[in-house]
Parts: sequence; C-alpha cells; structure tokens
Amino acid sequence: MPTQFDPPSGTRDFLARDWEFRERAFGRIRSVFARYGFEPLATPAFERLDVLLGKYGDEGDKLIFKILRRGEHEGTGEADLALRYDMTVPLARVAAAYGSQLPTPYKRYAMGPVWRADRPGHGRYREFTQCDLDTLGSASVMADAEIVSAVHDTLAELGVPGFRFLLNSRRVLAGLLEAFGVPADLGPGVLISLDKLDKLTPPEVIAELTGRGLAEAKAADLVGAMTADNAAEQIRDALKASDEGSAGLAEVDALLSLLAGLVPEDRIAFTPRLVRGLSYYTGPIWEVVAPGATSSIASGGRYDHLIEQLGGPDVPATGGSLGVERILLLLPDPEGGHSRLDVAVTVMAEQYAARSFSLAAAAREACLRASVYLGSSGKLGRQLKWASDTGARWALIYGGAEDEANKVTVRDMTTGDQAQVPVGALTEYLAGLADAAE
Amino acid sequence: MPTQFDPPSGTRDFLARDWEFRERAFGRIRSVFARYGFEPLATPAFERLDVLLGKYGDEGDKLIFKILRRGEHEGTGEADLALRYDMTVPLARVAAAYGSQLPTPYKRYAMGPVWRADRPGHGRYREFTQCDLDTLGSASVMADAEIVSAVHDTLAELGVPGFRFLLNSRRVLAGLLEAFGVPADLGPGVLISLDKLDKLTPPEVIAELTGRGLAEAKAADLVGAMTADNAAEQIRDALKASDEGSAGLAEVDALLSLLAGLVPEDRIAFTPRLVRGLSYYTGPIWEVVAPGATSSIASGGRYDHLIEQLGGPDVPATGGSLGVERILLLLPDPEGGHSRLDVAVTVMAEQYAARSFSLAAAAREACLRASVYLGSSGKLGRQLKWASDTGARWALIYGGAEDEANKVTVRDMTTGDQAQVPVGALTEYLAGLADAAE
Repeated sequence: MPTQFDPPSGTRDFLARDWEFRERAFGRIRSVFARYGFEPLATPAFERLDVLLGKYGDEGDKLIFKILRRGEHEGTGEADLALRYDMTVPLARVAAAYGSQLPTPYKRYAMGPVWRADRPGHGRYREFTQCDLDTLGSASVMADAEIVSAVHDTLAELGVPGFRFLLNSRRVLAGLLEAFGVPADLGPGVLISLDKLDKLTPPEVIAELTGRGLAEAKAADLVGAMTADNAAEQIRDALKASDEGSAGLAEVDALLSLLAGLVPEDRIAFTPRLVRGLSYYTGPIWEVVAPGATSSIASGGRYDHLIEQLGGPDVPATGGSLGVERILLLLPDPEGGHSRLDVAVTVMAEQYAARSFSLAAAAREACLRASVYLGSSGKLGRQLKWASDTGARWALIYGGAEDEANKVTVRDMTTGDQAQVPVGALTEYLAGLADAAE
Repeated sequence: MPTQFDPPSGTRDFLARDWEFRERAFGRIRSVFARYGFEPLATPAFERLDVLLGKYGDEGDKLIFKILRRGEHEGTGEADLALRYDMTVPLARVAAAYGSQLPTPYKRYAMGPVWRADRPGHGRYREFTQCDLDTLGSASVMADAEIVSAVHDTLAELGVPGFRFLLNSRRVLAGLLEAFGVPADLGPGVLISLDKLDKLTPPEVIAELTGRGLAEAKAADLVGAMTADNAAEQIRDALKASDEGSAGLAEVDALLSLLAGLVPEDRIAFTPRLVRGLSYYTGPIWEVVAPGATSSIASGGRYDHLIEQLGGPDVPATGGSLGVERILLLLPDPEGGHSRLDVAVTVMAEQYAARSFSLAAAAREACLRASVYLGSSGKLGRQLKWASDTGARWALIYGGAEDEANKVTVRDMTTGDQAQVPVGALTEYLAGLADAAE
C-alpha cells in the first residue's frame, strides 16, 4: 500500500525546489513588511484549547485540531491544547501578555503555518501558510492606508500580475442601508445578499432581498445603484442623506488621498458593493482581486473591538492578510532546472580523496555550492554523469597527472572545455568564473 | 489571573528581537548547508500516528503529542495524528514516498520545530527547533567526513567559541569489548557504563562495571586504558588484537585524514570513551562539546539500517544534528538596542499627511525601514519622542515652511542636526547617509 507514505491528508512535503520557491517569496514579503516598520512575531504552534474555542463560531470550532491530554490523563479522551487556527487570536493573547513591553502602536506581522481540519480540496489544505500584518493602537486612517500600501508593495514586489484593490467602509454600508430605507432588522441579511453581487446576477440578488422581506422597489433601487456603470457616483450621491454614510465616505476619500502617490490610480477603486462577510469590521475594508484567482488574494480592514473580544486589551486595530497559498499559484514558475551544486568534485582514487575534500572547501570559499562524489565508482565517466545530474556548472578532476603538476582540472560542464589551474589559485579562479557567469 | 496569557507550558512567544536573533543564526546555518550541497526538506507538523508510534521506545511514545480525531469521531477520545517528534522518522517516510525522485545520494537538511511532551525545565522546551543534516545512499566514509566538516563550518560561521569534536566508531567499541575480553552478553551494559566516564570518576565506573558482572581486573584494565593520558595510543595498541577493532580504527583514521585540511587539528580528537547512547549507530560516531555547554551541542554518526527500521528503504545513511537551542545560548547577544525603524516620518498637519506618506515611500526606495507617525498628537516634541523610541536614525519633518520651499527637513536623531533637502532628492540623499553610516 504505497499511499501510506504520503503525508497526512491535506498536508504537503516540500522538497528542495518547492521549498526554495516558497522561501524566496516569503523572504520578499518579509523584506517589504520590514521596510514598513512591521516587526515579526512568532507564537507557538499550539495554544491552550480555551484560548481558541469559541473564537471562530460553531463551524470554526469544529475545524480546530485538538491535542489529547498526556500521561495519566490520556485515557480521558480530553484535549487541553489545540493547533493554531489563525494569527489573530495569538495576537490578542500576546497583546494581553506583553502589554507595555510592546511598542505603541504595535505593528507586527506573522507568517507561518496554521491548521484547519477542513475537507481538503483543490488548493485547500489542512496545513497552510498564513501571513498577516496588523497595527494595534492607532485609530488613524493613516494606519489603514499604511497596511494597504504595504500589501500593494508586497504584491508588486512578488510580481503578481494585474492585481486591484476594492475599497469600501463598513460605515458606508451602514449609511447605504439608512439612505435606501432598509429597516434596521433586515440590515445584516441585506448586506449578506449584496455581498453576492460579484457571483449572482442583479435579478437573483433582488429576488434574495425580497425573500428576506425587503420591499421590491427598495431592493431594485439598491441593486440598481450598486451595479450601475457609475455606481460609485450614484452611491456617493445617495450617502449624502446619511451622517454615518457621509463619515464613511470621508474615510474612504481620506484613504484614497493618502494612497494617491503610492498605489497607482487604476489599481484601487471605491467599491460600494464590497461587504466582506466578517461582522467584526468597523471601518475601512478592502480586498485584492487578480486575474486567474477565483477569490480574493488579500483582504483586511479595521476591527476596533475584536482584540478585546478575543481576550486582549481594548485597542483600535487594523490589518490585512495575504492569501499566500493562492498568491503563490499566480507567480511565474522558477526558471529552468533546479541545480543542486555549482561545483562537483570527482574522486579519482582513494589516495586523492583528502585532496578532493580540500578542493571542495576551496570552491565553498568562493561562496559556491560544492560537494565531492560520494559514490563507489572510480570511473570518470560515471562521476561526470553524477556531476551533470546535480546541475553543476563545473566539475573538478584531480588524479595522478594533476597530482604531479599540483594542478586541478576544471571542466566546464556545459561546453566540456577543461583548464588546468594551480591548486592554490582555485578559489580565486572559480570566483572569477562565477562572476563572469552572472 | 494574568498567567493565562502566557504561551502554553514549555513553549515560547518570539517577539521581534528574539525572532531576528534566531533567524539570523538559522540563515547562517542554511547557507553553510547549501554550500555543501545539502537540500532543504520540510515535512508537515503532524504525521499519521502509526508513522510515529513505536519508533522512539516506550519512553518516547509517552512524549508524543497526539491529535484527537475530529467530527463524529471526536467523542471516541482516539487520536489519529501526532506532532512531529524528530526529523528522522519523517525523512524515512519521505525516502519511502519519493524514492527515485530523490537524488542519489540524497543529502538533505531539515530545520524546524519538533514537539515533545517533556517536563519543561531550564533550557528544555516542549516546542523547540531541531536541525538535522543527513546523507542517504552513500556507504563511503567520505559522506561521514562531509557531515562533520559541514557541522564544523556551521559552528565556526555562527561564532561558537572553543568547540571540539570527539570522534569514535561503534566498530572501535565492538573491538574494544573483544580486545579486553568482555563477554558478549555484558557488552551493551558495559558500553552504557563506559559512556559515563565524562560524568563519573574511574573508580565509580569500575564499580558499576563489576556490578554488571565484569571481572574486577578486566574492568580496571578497561577503564585504565580509556582514561590514561595516552588513552588513544593505548586503545590503538589494544585494538590490533581485534579484526573489528582494526577496521574501526581504519575508519577513524580515514575520517581524520579526510578532515585534515578542513577541521583544525586541535578541534577534533579520536576519543575511545565516546559511546553515544543510541543503539542504532553502526559506524563512525561523533559529538561536539563546547565550554559553557553542559551537554553536547551537536552529534551524529552512521546509522546504516535505521531508515529501513523506520519504514523507509534499506539505504546506508549518516547524519548529524545541531542542538540549536543550546547553541543559541552560546552566541553573543545581539549588539546594542533593537531598532525598529531607520527613518521616522512626522505628520505635522492633516493636509500634509499624504506628503508624509510619500516621503516614507521615498525612504523605502532607499531600502530603509520607514514609517509615518500614526498617533494623534500634532506636537513635534511628542512625535520626535516617538521617533526616538523606534530607534530611528533620522526623522523627517514636513510642515508649512517645508511645503512652501518644497523641501523636507531631515533631522539626525543622534546629533540633532537638521538639513533641508529638496523633496525630489530625498531618496538619493538618504541612501547617501545610509552608505556613510555603514
């Protein structure tokens, strides 16, 4: 049964090529975040179960991986720990634990695996990388703008093609409900239906709204304004009737103005129909869409009371999350074959093995990846085949003739050209070749 | 109850400074491994429970964190998954799963957290970083030498002071038992006692050996030879009487000869009393000791049948493990205070906020870490206090006067000196300052 060697359902092994592709992207993300003054935070893979339970709703609770108690308590079948489900609950715990030791505002990013016992599917994993950046302790719209700008720069640095920000505010949505005369008790349901305007047709959404009890004329007005070619203008006009709506609009405009020099105009737009399902948002909200991605590749917003609800201090907060796994699928595949070595060192006879070792060391001193042949064949052809398999650019050969001349043969693995290089000059020689090859 | 905000027992939160200290060390380790042609391998945090159970002995099994089954099966109290306990069992699984897709030999390193439900104590954690490098598929002593050399270079690169390699071979130990006439059935117990020669006095070890049933004269001979000033010589002499011992000695000498140019002579020594507790070693074994570390900071050896025993293919194998957590304790503390920013950008009035945003962007273009002030105070003094708290080297000020002149004030936070710089020339100006400061 060969499948028993697969990693557990919904998880992946990353061999060299995939790991390096991912780490290169992660390194770029980290460097942009650092340039914005966001600090890294790493929390344990598991938290106490009571820290996580009840924070993600009933559906979320079911998806938490729980860890069995140990020793004499194992038999109880009870759990006391659970694998990290997201980066926000640990952030709330850290904010509570380290309070005044943290800078104000506390700008942190967290990038690492989270675990959810979801049904694995196309592009959906049980272990996947989550990448969040958040600012705790600033109520200013500048903090929101900074997050959006940092996410923009990150996606640009990664080379994601054609991405765009959709921008809105929960206060705009509240004003909208008011301006279109939606009864307060229908509000949350109406927003849930409006959120489907990117997937359903306008008549379908109108039908859903009337099904929720909204008068048909109001539903048609609302959907008409949201889907018009000049939706943003129509909504702007309508919002003037509502204080909350006007304030939300001012917030959106302040954001757009702060971002004017940083995010190209065609990459960000006020999008009144953007709702973002999660109820905890309190101010600006945004999403990033990109060609080839069926759902958003990044999203975020202001959530001024969530940290307190999650057990942390009462601080204003805003943040964003990159859908790293989805983003990685949009990046160009790493070019060419995966090379394991720059320099492959043959071992022509046992008495020259120590010499081969020091030749490899000399190549490493030139900052090249080098290794000696570890197989059992003494045949040059066999060893050069190995050198070729590693993707090495050069092979070093040291046998009787080289030993007499105190030189090493450097073979170019692409052209087959060979040069005799004095042993003491090898590091410098290889460094020169590497420079020239770049 | 403030303790409820701590991370779970035996785990740690890493805030920026600690995380950066660790990542810098990890980056150095990775770069040395890569230069030796070792490839990264990352496996999931958890494995199927049956993959782990029974691989670490009864004591080890008790320390495995088990994950409860989910959904309708949660009530059974049964586990089906378990957190990674080491890097070797996942390696065996990967070798079985990807067989011919892996290069031969397969040289891989794995660095990441493992979890053990040990009683937490001084320097002992339930979540800690393990770092292994292994070569599968080479029976050559060159593969052993390469591992030792890579570990040496890693410790040197990290700046671990005064470390030394103790080197031996399981075959030397087998020969030793033969040469000193230790009955075969006492062999394993005798080795366990000899392993204590670094902690107990010679008479204590002799007493333990006789307690195991070894004749007192033989025990005294053996311990005398092992602890003599010229122990290595005495043992070399004694081993000539045993075929296995002679072969082991030849192995040790081959290793020392391969390493002659790579590991300074005073940093590695044949150490006959080195046993290494783990029974799976089959050839060369080694340990690294360092002043200030009460136990070894790295260790390894050849284990030719283990991968098969762990469920993988039958391949010769050799490897080593860095005691990363112990090594980190030996490294010099990162110099000076932790700076979060290079450039702190003040916001003197709302109408200049967008300008401050683009000034921060200009600083980032010079590859500097820059952020705008996100607080609510409009006072320069308050904002400069924030700038100082971030550790920024420069503050940027842009108010009415600067707006009229289309210049920005660049303040040196150390000296208090201020310069007026044209807005369009800021990136270049800051890049120049940063170069000069390096």
